[in-house]
Amino acid sequence: RINAAIENGDADALAATVANLHESELGDVLETFDSDERGRFVGLLGDRFDFSALTEVDEAVRMEIIDALSNDKIAAAVQALDSDDAVYILEDLDEKDQAEILAQLPFTERIRLRRSLDYPEESAGRRMQTEFVAVPPYWSVGQTIDYMRDSEDLPTSFAQIFVVDPTFHLVGAVDLDKLLRTKRPVKIEEIMRETRHAIPAETDQEEAAQIFEQYDLLSAAVVDENERLVGILTIDDVVDVIQEEAEEDLKRLGGVGDEELSDSVVETTKSRFLWLLINLATAILASFVIGLFDATIAEMVALAVLMPIVASMGGNAGTQTMTVAVRALATRDIDIYNASRIIRREVTVGFINGIVFAALIGLVAAVWFASPALGGVIGVAMIINMVSAALAGILIPLLLDRFGADPAIASSVFVTTVTDVVGFFAFLGFAAWWFGI
Amino acid sequence: RINAAIENGDADALAATVANLHESELGDVLETFDSDERGRFVGLLGDRFDFSALTEVDEAVRMEIIDALSNDKIAAAVQALDSDDAVYILEDLDEKDQAEILAQLPFTERIRLRRSLDYPEESAGRRMQTEFVAVPPYWSVGQTIDYMRDSEDLPTSFAQIFVVDPTFHLVGAVDLDKLLRTKRPVKIEEIMRETRHAIPAETDQEEAAQIFEQYDLLSAAVVDENERLVGILTIDDVVDVIQEEAEEDLKRLGGVGDEELSDSVVETTKSRFLWLLINLATAILASFVIGLFDATIAEMVALAVLMPIVASMGGNAGTQTMTVAVRALATRDIDIYNASRIIRREVTVGFINGIVFAALIGLVAAVWFASPALGGVIGVAMIINMVSAALAGILIPLLLDRFGADPAIASSVFVTTVTDVVGFFAFLGFAAWWFGI
Ligand SMILES: [Mg+2]
Ligand SMILES: [Mg+2]
Ligand SMILES: [Mg+2]
Ligand SMILES: [Mg+2]
Ligand SMILES: [Mg+2]
Ligand SMILES: [Mg+2]
Ligand SMILES: [Mg+2]
Ligand SMILES: [Mg+2]
Ligand SMILES: [Mg+2]
Ligand SMILES: [Mg+2]
Ligand SMILES: [Mg+2]
Ligand SMILES: [Mg+2]
Ligand SMILES: [Mg+2]
Repeated sequence: RINAAIENGDADALAATVANLHESELGDVLETFDSDERGRFVGLLGDRFDFSALTEVDEAVRMEIIDALSNDKIAAAVQALDSDDAVYILEDLDEKDQAEILAQLPFTERIRLRRSLDYPEESAGRRMQTEFVAVPPYWSVGQTIDYMRDSEDLPTSFAQIFVVDPTFHLVGAVDLDKLLRTKRPVKIEEIMRETRHAIPAETDQEEAAQIFEQYDLLSAAVVDENERLVGILTIDDVVDVIQEEAEEDLKRLGGVGDEELSDSVVETTKSRFLWLLINLATAILASFVIGLFDATIAEMVALAVLMPIVASMGGNAGTQTMTVAVRALATRDIDIYNASRIIRREVTVGFINGIVFAALIGLVAAVWFASPALGGVIGVAMIINMVSAALAGILIPLLLDRFGADPAIASSVFVTTVTDVVGFFAFLGFAAWWFGI
Repeated sequence: RINAAIENGDADALAATVANLHESELGDVLETFDSDERGRFVGLLGDRFDFSALTEVDEAVRMEIIDALSNDKIAAAVQALDSDDAVYILEDLDEKDQAEILAQLPFTERIRLRRSLDYPEESAGRRMQTEFVAVPPYWSVGQTIDYMRDSEDLPTSFAQIFVVDPTFHLVGAVDLDKLLRTKRPVKIEEIMRETRHAIPAETDQEEAAQIFEQYDLLSAAVVDENERLVGILTIDDVVDVIQEEAEEDLKRLGGVGDEELSDSVVETTKSRFLWLLINLATAILASFVIGLFDATIAEMVALAVLMPIVASMGGNAGTQTMTVAVRALATRDIDIYNASRIIRREVTVGFINGIVFAALIGLVAAVWFASPALGGVIGVAMIINMVSAALAGILIPLLLDRFGADPAIASSVFVTTVTDVVGFFAFLGFAAWWFGI
């Protein structure tokens, strides 16, 4: 039906069909279109296009739509949005367009959006919405309810109201269910909770999300450096943050950058390139190690046949340990209290599995090449590499984290370099020494 | 202070210190203790130990504490919990203990918990809480507010009330902010939203979480097969589900099972073993492929030196594609509309990067071994393996998903098997043919 309306250029039919869609459904519709269809779709809807759908699509899609619109149109459209959604769209534009758009907005809105945009990317201040309900502590419950019944200027939905003093310092918060269960004459200050979880605006969004998770919050106050209430974070946006951060870690561990499903071939190729280049360098490093033993391999080709097994088992064991470490660091579950216990556990596990797999592969190699000595050599190399893998898998993420790097982005390459180099060196070196070649 | 209180066996001091902690903070405290300290801590607190902290700790820690307590004590303690938290603790016990504990509970509570436990693991019915506020549609706003002010029997906190007919069929929901903004004489049915997002109790928790994300819900009604309201899901528990599912995918991709940070050496070794064993099998398979060309390698050791590079680059490129595919499947972002576009994109990207890296490694190999022919051979093998990697990386997760397997758990092993086998076979086979050895 949507497609038919676009074909016929029937704007009214299109608007009617789309009107009942949730912004996220509208976003999904946009993502299934190709560029052409998207352009015609947005063009046809004109003023009736709900910009909040743009917060639900991939960046590539959002930028394409935004770039096709004039700054005047964008300025008109963002006024209808919650401030956090407006900022989400504006932050990707260049300075000049941002300034032009902001200049067309009413004074208070301009100031609010400007302030959010001035906070660092991915901070609580950047993600907050500036629409919220704040009341003084000396109001009664009845007065508060009447104010909410009469006021036109409330956020579209909210789960909490905040309590501020005359200078807008945050003094507390009241959940709506608490408000509803309290008799009208009771004063707000009697039922408010002191807000233990006010979030400084500079806080990274990931840390803010952890506070929401830990304390099961629905919304939280965001305060500036003077403890003044400047906005609120809401759980629906925090859920998006949690998803983004989890996705980021998963992708970084898999060696893919910030790419999205809508990215083009060129963007995708570029985003994968750097990681592959680094891997090429480390693979060549491992080859050099093998090259050191070319005479040995020429004497005994079985070594070439078997050597990838040692490296591969180490790589897998290292990846296991690293995965656990990176995740635990992301959820702040590793700390100084348990780090040494976990290091010891990982090394012990590596050692035990090393012995077990040394026995298995030793047997296979001994039978395959009818050489018990070769079985022994590969077994020893396996134990060495599994223990190295455990050490690399736990220590590299911990060190990266300590030095402020993101363990998810860089651990993988270091860990597999260690397990490749140690694997080849231990196996070929020990074989060269043992067989005297 | 907590440690001092445990040392002195001072139960009152301990209870006082602990009283102000949030259940999640109490959980963190439990996790930093070793077994002994935990036992003494829970023992000292006795009835004053807040069981809800058990929903915030690793399973190993929870089971240890629960196992040390008598069923009578557990029965007494779970009565103070929300039903979802009670179920979360009971579901890990064996049938017999569950039955004994349930038998000691009052009739209605027993029935409710039993029903939740009868729903499948990780379903909406298992995760729901049975405490909620439901009112008939013909009540007025004023009547509803008065009911909430007077009733003792309300959930500890809630963000929505539900509207049911006399047979408890769900007819709608009202957000509390809506209720607060409406004048007292207005009827509930006039302000309620029809609940488009009622969740059948059998729904998997992951799917339920996706509904929350998509529609930015704070809570949602859970209904039985007759559309009767049986409980609600709340966003704080859904956030935990989202975290669990993201962690599960990350760990599965990394080849680690359901292990947790508190697991012992033995548990961890076991959980890692199977994956390593499968990897051993595939590594031996790759070795067999190399073994087919042992005569070739004996003639030309440079092949042994270079061959891991082709395999490793393919492995990495395949992992990149697979990571993107697995994540997109988990978030339901790949569907029949875009699957073919993404397959084409991945293969094209693999081909382009294949050519680029073929040129790079071809140059390195030609110079290193002073053999342009060898450079050409490794280049061709690189292109073949990078395209195979892209195909494997996208098709394997799609196929696994189509056949109902979790792509996160099994893709990795298949993809690297393909890239190893194809990498070694293409490089060694092409070299054998080209150089005629
Ligand atoms: Mg939104
Ligand atoms: Mg989407
Ligand atoms: Mg953005
Ligand atoms: Mg971040
Ligand atoms: Mg929580
Ligand atoms: Mg928002
Ligand atoms: Mg992160
Ligand atoms: Mg909880
Ligand atoms: Mg459980
Ligand atoms: Mg699941
Ligand atoms: Mg959402
Ligand atoms: Mg709950
Ligand atoms: Mg899953």
